[in-house]
Amino acid sequence: MPSQKMHSLPPRPLPRILLLGLVPVAAWFVVRPLLDPVPALPALYTSVGFSIFAFLSTLYLVPALGHTFVKAGLKGGDLLKPYRHEIPIPESQGLVCASIYILLLMLFIPFAFSNFIMNFASENTSYSEGISVVQFPHYQLSVYLSSLLSLLIATMLGFLDDVFDIRWRHKLPIPIIASIPLLMVYYAERGNTHVVVPLPLRSILGTLVNLGPLYYLYMSLLSTFATNSINILAGINGSEVSQALIIAVSVILNDLLYLPWPMDFRIPLHLLGNKAEVEFGGVWSAGMAYGSRELVERHLFSLYFMMPLVAVCLGFLYHNWYPARAFPGDTLCYVTGMAFAVVGIQAHFSKTLLLFFIPQIFNFIISCPQLFGLVPCPRHRVPRYDADTNLLYPSTAELVKEPSKITMLTLKTMAALGLTELQLHPKTGAIQKASNLTILNFFLVRLGPMNEKRLVQVLMCSQVAGSVVA
Amino acid sequence: MPSQKMHSLPPRPLPRILLLGLVPVAAWFVVRPLLDPVPALPALYTSVGFSIFAFLSTLYLVPALGHTFVKAGLKGGDLLKPYRHEIPIPESQGLVCASIYILLLMLFIPFAFSNFIMNFASENTSYSEGISVVQFPHYQLSVYLSSLLSLLIATMLGFLDDVFDIRWRHKLPIPIIASIPLLMVYYAERGNTHVVVPLPLRSILGTLVNLGPLYYLYMSLLSTFATNSINILAGINGSEVSQALIIAVSVILNDLLYLPWPMDFRIPLHLLGNKAEVEFGGVWSAGMAYGSRELVERHLFSLYFMMPLVAVCLGFLYHNWYPARAFPGDTLCYVTGMAFAVVGIQAHFSKTLLLFFIPQIFNFIISCPQLFGLVPCPRHRVPRYDADTNLLYPSTAELVKEPSKITMLTLKTMAALGLTELQLHPKTGAIQKASNLTILNFFLVRLGPMNEKRLVQVLMCSQVAGSVVA
Repeated sequence: MPSQKMHSLPPRPLPRILLLGLVPVAAWFVVRPLLDPVPALPALYTSVGFSIFAFLSTLYLVPALGHTFVKAGLKGGDLLKPYRHEIPIPESQGLVCASIYILLLMLFIPFAFSNFIMNFASENTSYSEGISVVQFPHYQLSVYLSSLLSLLIATMLGFLDDVFDIRWRHKLPIPIIASIPLLMVYYAERGNTHVVVPLPLRSILGTLVNLGPLYYLYMSLLSTFATNSINILAGINGSEVSQALIIAVSVILNDLLYLPWPMDFRIPLHLLGNKAEVEFGGVWSAGMAYGSRELVERHLFSLYFMMPLVAVCLGFLYHNWYPARAFPGDTLCYVTGMAFAVVGIQAHFSKTLLLFFIPQIFNFIISCPQLFGLVPCPRHRVPRYDADTNLLYPSTAELVKEPSKITMLTLKTMAALGLTELQLHPKTGAIQKASNLTILNFFLVRLGPMNEKRLVQVLMCSQVAGSVVA
Repeated sequence: MPSQKMHSLPPRPLPRILLLGLVPVAAWFVVRPLLDPVPALPALYTSVGFSIFAFLSTLYLVPALGHTFVKAGLKGGDLLKPYRHEIPIPESQGLVCASIYILLLMLFIPFAFSNFIMNFASENTSYSEGISVVQFPHYQLSVYLSSLLSLLIATMLGFLDDVFDIRWRHKLPIPIIASIPLLMVYYAERGNTHVVVPLPLRSILGTLVNLGPLYYLYMSLLSTFATNSINILAGINGSEVSQALIIAVSVILNDLLYLPWPMDFRIPLHLLGNKAEVEFGGVWSAGMAYGSRELVERHLFSLYFMMPLVAVCLGFLYHNWYPARAFPGDTLCYVTGMAFAVVGIQAHFSKTLLLFFIPQIFNFIISCPQLFGLVPCPRHRVPRYDADTNLLYPSTAELVKEPSKITMLTLKTMAALGLTELQLHPKTGAIQKASNLTILNFFLVRLGPMNEKRLVQVLMCSQVAGSVVA
C-alpha cells in the first residue's frame, strides 16, 4: 500500500475533563477500606476503584498505542466499510485491554488477601469481635493466582494467534492449555468434583453427584466453549466486546444477589448505571445466600474478576463502536472467554453462566453444519457489505459440487425453520447457495438488510434478552 | 529481499535413535514417585523426568517451528556471518523454550503439591510414621504460582519486545512489572523482609536485619538486574543461552549441597554430567542444611525451577550454537533472567546468586560509560566481523565531537587498565575511536582477534571460572 494513500481514522475524541473527574472517585474507592468505619466488604470498594482506573486507562491507551500496533504489522482493513483497502485499523488491541485487566488484578492481590488489611478490617468491624486469629485465606489465594495464570496464558495464546495466524482447527484446543493451571491447582487442592444436580433430576440422583475425572473434562470444555463461542460470533464492529460486556454485567448482577446487603451497601449498583436493578438486588438480598459465608466468598471472587472486565470492555467498546477505530483481535475473545470460564469454575456457577450464553449457543448450533463440513464454509462468514446502500446483506456459501443427501436435508430443514435462505437453481431446483449459518446472517434474513450499527444493536438486544430470561 | 535468493540453513541433524531412547528414561523418572519404595524426595524424580522431556521437546520443536517464525516476520540476519543478508534466521525462538518450560512447570504442580501424592509418599516412607495429618503446603503453592506468573509475564513482555521492538530505555523497567506477582504475594503472605547479614558485618548489625519496604525494592531490582545483565551480553551465537545455562547449572550445584543425601541418592548428579562434582556433593552433603527442613524445601524449590531451565537451554543451545540456526530473541533473556530472580528471591539465596553473575557484573561495569552517555554508544556493539579472515575484531565507537574532560579521563583510565583500545589522532593525540566497552570486545582486545565459536568458548570459560570462584 503506498504510504501517500495511507490515512487513518482520527481517534474518537474523549471528554477529558469529565473523565479526569473520575480519578478522585476511583482513588476514594481504593482508599476507602483503609478509613474508619471499615465497610463490610472492604476489598469490594477497592475493586470498584480499580475498575474505574481500568476503564480510564483503556480509554486512553487504546488510541495512544494504535500507531505502534499498525507499525508492527498488527493491522487490518475493515471488511464492511467502503474504505476497507485504504485505511488500516490497528488489530489485536484486545492485548491492551488484557494487559490492563491482568495488571490490575495482580495489584489487587494485597487488598483481597493481605494479612494487614484483613486484620485491620477485622479489628474495626463488629462482625468478628472475639475472634483473635483470622485464618489466612491460603486456599483462595492459590485459586486466585491460578485464575490469573489461566488468563495470562489465554492472553499470550490469543496474541500468538494474532501474530502467527493459527489455523481454525488448531485453535480449538488452545483454551484447554490455558485452563491447565486451573485444573492443576484444583487437583492439587483436592478440589470438589461434586456437582449440584438440577432440581428436576434430584429425586433420582440426589442433590450432589460426584463426577470425578469427568469434572476436569467438563471444566476444560467449559473454557473451550466460552472462548470459542465468543470468537466465532465476530466480524462486525463491536460484536465481540459488546457480547463480553453484556455477559459480564449479567454475571455481576447475578453475584450481587448473593451478597449480604446492609442498607448502606447499595452504592456500587448505581455505578453500573442500572437504576432499575437496585430495587431488585435489595429485595432478594439476604434470601439468596442464606448466610452462607462460602457462597458470599465465591460471588465476591466472581465480582473481583468481572468488574474490571466490564470496565475494560466498556473502555474498548468506545473505540470499537461503529465505525471502529480499533479491532480487538483474538486476544480479547480469549481473555474474556477465559475470564467467564474461570469465574464459572471457581465460583461454582457454571450452569448459570451457560444461561447467559444463549445467543452464543444458538450461534454455535446453527453453525454446526458449516463447522463440521456438511455445508461449505468460506474463510469469512461476515455479512456482505453493499457500498451503495451502506447496508449489510446476508452473505452466502456457494455449493459448488452436488450436495450430499444429508446436506440437502439439513439445509432444507433449516430453511423451513427460517434459519437460512436458500437460492435454488431456476430449472433443476438444486440448492446453489445458502446464506451463511451464523446468528448475524440469521438476523439479516429474518429482519431484512440493515446497517452495521443497527446489527450490533440487534445482537446486543438479543444478548440482553437472553440474560433476562436466564 | 527477493524470494529466489532466500535460502535457509538446513536444521542441525538430530541423532533420533539416541534421543528417543531418552523417552523411557524420562518416563521412568516421572512415574518413579508412584512406585514402592517411595524415594525420599519423590517430586525431585518427577522434575528430572520432566526436564528430560523439556530437553527433547526443545530439540525437536525449535527447528520444526523455525519456518513459522520466519513467515510471521520474526527473523533476522546473522550479523557476524558472510551470508548475513541472504539467509534469514528465525528470531525470538526463545518463545518456544519459554513455552515448554512454563507448560512443564504447570504440569508439575500436582506432583509437587498434590495431597494424593504427598499422602501416598508419607504413608510409604519411614520418615513420617506416626504423623497422620500432613499439612498441605498452601504457602509454597502460592509462592510457586506467583513465580509462574512472573515467568509468564516475562515471556509475554519479552515477546512483545521482539514484536514491537521497544526502545532500550523503555525496556529497563519491564522486569519490574514481571516481578509484581512475586512482590504482591510476598506482601500478602506477610513475607519475611529480614536479610542475613554477611559474616564480616555481623558484629555491627547482628545476624538479621529487617529491610522493610527496602526489601521489595531490592527484590524488584534483582529481577531487573538478572534480566538485563543477560540481555546486554548478547550479540554472538550462543552467548545468551550459554550464560543462562552455566548460571543455572551453578545454581543447581549449589542447591544440591543443601539436600539430604542418603547414599543411594547420588544418581541425579551423574545426569548432569559433572562427575567431578559427585564427590564434592557427597562430602558436604549433610553439613550444609544442618537438618533444617525449611532450607531443604527452599533448595528443592530452586531445583524444580532450574532443572527444566537447564534442559531447555541445552536443547536450544544445540540449535543456537555457531553457526546459529535459531536466535533466542529477547524472550529467552527475559525468561531466564526472571527465573534466576525468582529462585534467588523465593529460595532466599540472592547473594549467592549474584556471585554467579560475575561476568555479567563485570560487563555491566565496563559498559557504564557507554550506557550513561559518557562515551557515544552505537546501536550494535557486537564485535566487527571480517569476512576474509573469518575472525572477529573489536568494534569501535567513533568520537565525532570533541570529547569532554570526563570522557577523556574515563577512557584513558580504562585503556590503562587494559579494558579498551584507543585510536588516537596521529597529530593532535586526541581520542578518535575507542573499542566498544563490552566484555566481548574486552576479550578480543586482550586475547587478539578470534573466530566467533572461540569467543563464545572464552565467554563460557569465564562464566565457569566465575562460578567456581563463587
